[in-house]
Amino acid sequence: MRACEIRDRRRLMDAALGRIACDLTVENVRFANMLTGEIYPAQVDVLDGAVVRVREAGESLPVPSHSVYDGGGRYLLPGLIDAHMHVESTMMIPQQLARAIVPWGTTTVCTDPHEIANVMGKRGVRFMLENAGLAALRQYILAPSCVPAAPGLESAGASFCAGDVGELLGQPGVIGVAEMMDYMGVVNGADRMAAIAEEGRGRGMFLQGHAPQLTGAALAAYRIGGPSSDHESRSAEEIREKLRNGMRINLRASSIVDALEELTRGLEGMGWLDQVSLCTDDVHAADLLAKGHLNAIVARLIHGGMNPMVAYKLCTYNAAREYGFDDLGAVAPGYLADFQLLDALDGRMPYAVFLRGKLAACQGRYVLQDQSSTCRVQPENTMRVCGIKGEEDFCIAVGDGRQTARVLVLGRTGRGLERSGEWVALPVRNGLVSLQDRPDLQFIAVVNRYGSGAKTVAVTKDFGLREGAVATTISHDSHNFTVVYRDAKSAFACLEKLRETGGGICAAREGRCIEALPLPLAGLMSLDACDVLAKKIDAVQSAMQSLCSKPFSLLDISVYALPAVPGLVITDKGIVDGDRQAFIASVS
Amino acid sequence: MRACEIRDRRRLMDAALGRIACDLTVENVRFANMLTGEIYPAQVDVLDGAVVRVREAGESLPVPSHSVYDGGGRYLLPGLIDAHMHVESTMMIPQQLARAIVPWGTTTVCTDPHEIANVMGKRGVRFMLENAGLAALRQYILAPSCVPAAPGLESAGASFCAGDVGELLGQPGVIGVAEMMDYMGVVNGADRMAAIAEEGRGRGMFLQGHAPQLTGAALAAYRIGGPSSDHESRSAEEIREKLRNGMRINLRASSIVDALEELTRGLEGMGWLDQVSLCTDDVHAADLLAKGHLNAIVARLIHGGMNPMVAYKLCTYNAAREYGFDDLGAVAPGYLADFQLLDALDGRMPYAVFLRGKLAACQGRYVLQDQSSTCRVQPENTMRVCGIKGEEDFCIAVGDGRQTARVLVLGRTGRGLERSGEWVALPVRNGLVSLQDRPDLQFIAVVNRYGSGAKTVAVTKDFGLREGAVATTISHDSHNFTVVYRDAKSAFACLEKLRETGGGICAAREGRCIEALPLPLAGLMSLDACDVLAKKIDAVQSAMQSLCSKPFSLLDISVYALPAVPGLVITDKGIVDGDRQAFIASVS
Repeated sequence: MRACEIRDRRRLMDAALGRIACDLTVENVRFANMLTGEIYPAQVDVLDGAVVRVREAGESLPVPSHSVYDGGGRYLLPGLIDAHMHVESTMMIPQQLARAIVPWGTTTVCTDPHEIANVMGKRGVRFMLENAGLAALRQYILAPSCVPAAPGLESAGASFCAGDVGELLGQPGVIGVAEMMDYMGVVNGADRMAAIAEEGRGRGMFLQGHAPQLTGAALAAYRIGGPSSDHESRSAEEIREKLRNGMRINLRASSIVDALEELTRGLEGMGWLDQVSLCTDDVHAADLLAKGHLNAIVARLIHGGMNPMVAYKLCTYNAAREYGFDDLGAVAPGYLADFQLLDALDGRMPYAVFLRGKLAACQGRYVLQDQSSTCRVQPENTMRVCGIKGEEDFCIAVGDGRQTARVLVLGRTGRGLERSGEWVALPVRNGLVSLQDRPDLQFIAVVNRYGSGAKTVAVTKDFGLREGAVATTISHDSHNFTVVYRDAKSAFACLEKLRETGGGICAAREGRCIEALPLPLAGLMSLDACDVLAKKIDAVQSAMQSLCSKPFSLLDISVYALPAVPGLVITDKGIVDGDRQAFIASVS
Repeated sequence: MRACEIRDRRRLMDAALGRIACDLTVENVRFANMLTGEIYPAQVDVLDGAVVRVREAGESLPVPSHSVYDGGGRYLLPGLIDAHMHVESTMMIPQQLARAIVPWGTTTVCTDPHEIANVMGKRGVRFMLENAGLAALRQYILAPSCVPAAPGLESAGASFCAGDVGELLGQPGVIGVAEMMDYMGVVNGADRMAAIAEEGRGRGMFLQGHAPQLTGAALAAYRIGGPSSDHESRSAEEIREKLRNGMRINLRASSIVDALEELTRGLEGMGWLDQVSLCTDDVHAADLLAKGHLNAIVARLIHGGMNPMVAYKLCTYNAAREYGFDDLGAVAPGYLADFQLLDALDGRMPYAVFLRGKLAACQGRYVLQDQSSTCRVQPENTMRVCGIKGEEDFCIAVGDGRQTARVLVLGRTGRGLERSGEWVALPVRNGLVSLQDRPDLQFIAVVNRYGSGAKTVAVTKDFGLREGAVATTISHDSHNFTVVYRDAKSAFACLEKLRETGGGICAAREGRCIEALPLPLAGLMSLDACDVLAKKIDAVQSAMQSLCSKPFSLLDISVYALPAVPGLVITDKGIVDGDRQAFIASVS
């Protein structure tokens, strides 16, 4: 597979042979060759966005290039490739993402528009493709395989059958089937997942995996079922078993889950890491601003003792090969001219980044004059909540005049996102379960926002919320309206506010909204640039924190309704036992 | 790409989950994992020719496998993959090749049927595909790209346009475009090569290279033109430059050219060898019998100091990835069950070889009961020489009554196959150039055998032939009848004999054939098994040697008319200056 068909190959060959001038020569660099692991002095010639030659230092050209860039003796190496990320998790639209991550040296992202697909279906995927096209950053898309993630257990804004996935696979820019997160469906040969795998396999396309804690027999069945990669490992042992069994591993450090140092321990003793690449999965705008992108993972790997060339290889050559790109991930004749200049091979911000042969960023500033500077998106309001009239809809009614009710209180087990339940006797006042005497507990509600009218109200002990309500329409994977609250009036206020903004994040106290972050694009993304957005996120985060007695992250709530994890899960349709993938009662 | 579509994936998954029995478990092995470079105790379960699980030693199965093979504590590693070979060069047909090389641990060969294509065209390629199908050895074919190798400079039995190559690329078992040996055509953007490259590129298929001594600007142009691999390097510097510039390298040790130790010197200082694999290119039946196949290259690499696991990785995992096979080159769930058991990781003959999950060879014996045991081929006679009436056709006539003529005497330069020419005054007797007083020289003639009537007669100093004639229809790349001789009567006798046998190799003295090796399949291949064939080759080689004053190899003559090398070349159409790709006069 090629990342981009070179339009006029003969022109490049003529340039290589010195018959016509190149657009650009980057001279005076220490060339870090990701094909061989060597570093040596060289100069790089570029035409039409592709590499024409990598010449020895001092070798002259018969026809000088139109422009010459002095590399200043810096290291030149390929741009970085994120093997798996969800753009929506940055809360930025693709054109803004480009401006945020290119300065960190990332030139290609392989993305799963799973979130917008769950809200807006194929229209959402097409929006991501089109919007990505406005910026130079290479943004590939994998067709979301699990829309909804857990059919029957949650309601999303769309439902993809194998034919829908196939239709997306036929679109330019779509390079495979995205993480097959219904992993038990794959393992057990469920018809839907088998048919979706076949859509990809029949086209010779990449099938991406998602196999948390799968081991032994089930891991083997999952691998045979199709997916050949995974980014969900949490332990060294898990990484090691998966690599040994033929899964490619995307070492992940996301804003939600980050066990990077533990994971790299799983690589110890291996002779080579050909099947290892890096990914950021879900990464937060503030983290992108403050810490960086893939380069930050590279820095940590090097800090942990990994050979710097190997660390960079994981997110260049290896990532390209994972997808079968044979013109990305290295700098050589016929490769695309995505590269960076670095003062040191330590994961720092590059001095300069070249994308498609053009200077795209310098010293942290995006300098490319592409279409990403103007945002022309007119988002539609995707908030279609129905059947919710007022605060009474956020209460748990107990009908039979009892003074107490036994309620299943959800709580984290300490193993990642996994939750268990504990039956607790709670007082009933005026026919409604009351948490007045239990400041350690909160209500949580998931309200369908695609017109079904479904909702679930439950009790959790996972949030230190003292008063008011915090709500979001970023709620993996169906992105229904999800609210944690102490008082129902504030929960309803959040809903009212987010209906008005087309979704977003909101904090309310005493029945009034105190801060809101509008996310008008599918209730998932802002149109703002990364720095502006990060400030707004900070404001809403602070407002949410002011309601809480312990540290609160808005991501905690965003993954509370995620059905693709083991243990107990809440969705708009009820409380789900993730292991059995079945509903259970939460009040008795 | 997958080597072979698994027919019933659910059955394999059921077996992985322990719901049904596997065909085979190979237990008690030291598992050499080519995905991670680790060695650890394990056991391997197989069903329907694919790997179902690799279990830890001691872990039991819910349902026992139908058969259990005790690995005896040996190393288990994948079968070897030859990245580039011409089956015809072994002089065996594909079904016999399988019996010869599987016992050495080779389970996959990626072949270029360039020779038979030059003789029989697409019919020849189809024969190779069909005949390969009679044995378990995986024999993939790349569509010959240069039929003839040097259009206009030689006449072959067929001529492929881009459409013909495209037609072959559509056949099952064809995995790419074979070595694009008209390298100057590629570099200069010649229409034929550009169109052939496009046939492969348009299908996302692999383009194999052949770029002897290409360097700098020309190498870059060749790489951009399409081909991404090479096996023609002769020096450490050539290997290094090609790897650095994005060419995959097939380290070659063939029966004709072997600079393996020099080539591996070119890998020194590299951090990794991801783009390096192994190939045998042209290998002789006697060498296969005595020395082995890829394993012999592995042994030499290890002897030269390469880490044994890395040496095996080159011809397993790396070779598979070169072609984009993601189910070959390793042993893991979903991979095809081609593996071997070895007493030591030193390139020795394996104790046992499993192919498609079945024991195929044990202690050097091919034990598989497949269709390769019966040869049912009825070859047609492809010798269509015309216009040759007698010995006079093998003389150089000088028409104007001169006593001497200036003749261009061909001679090796010492740089591989490369030849230069030297103008020498030779006596003319009865109007014919005479070598009577020059025992150091010989005549050489190339006679078209596809009905064109063309022939070229010249003089060479490269053979120590004292008397008689040696002739062959294996004559790269057009495989015209090629004869080296001291007396024209013996040359004609060779022609008469090989017309009768449908081609082959022949030695004659005093106008009579003294030994002949019939090669009835396209004048290139015998139907014999390797051991029988090797004896016959030895006999004809001995007969040829008996005519010579210095060591003589029949391969020397087979590559004497090869136009894809620099320097001077002889073809049926005349003497060619390989550098300029133009004819030059040889008598003045």
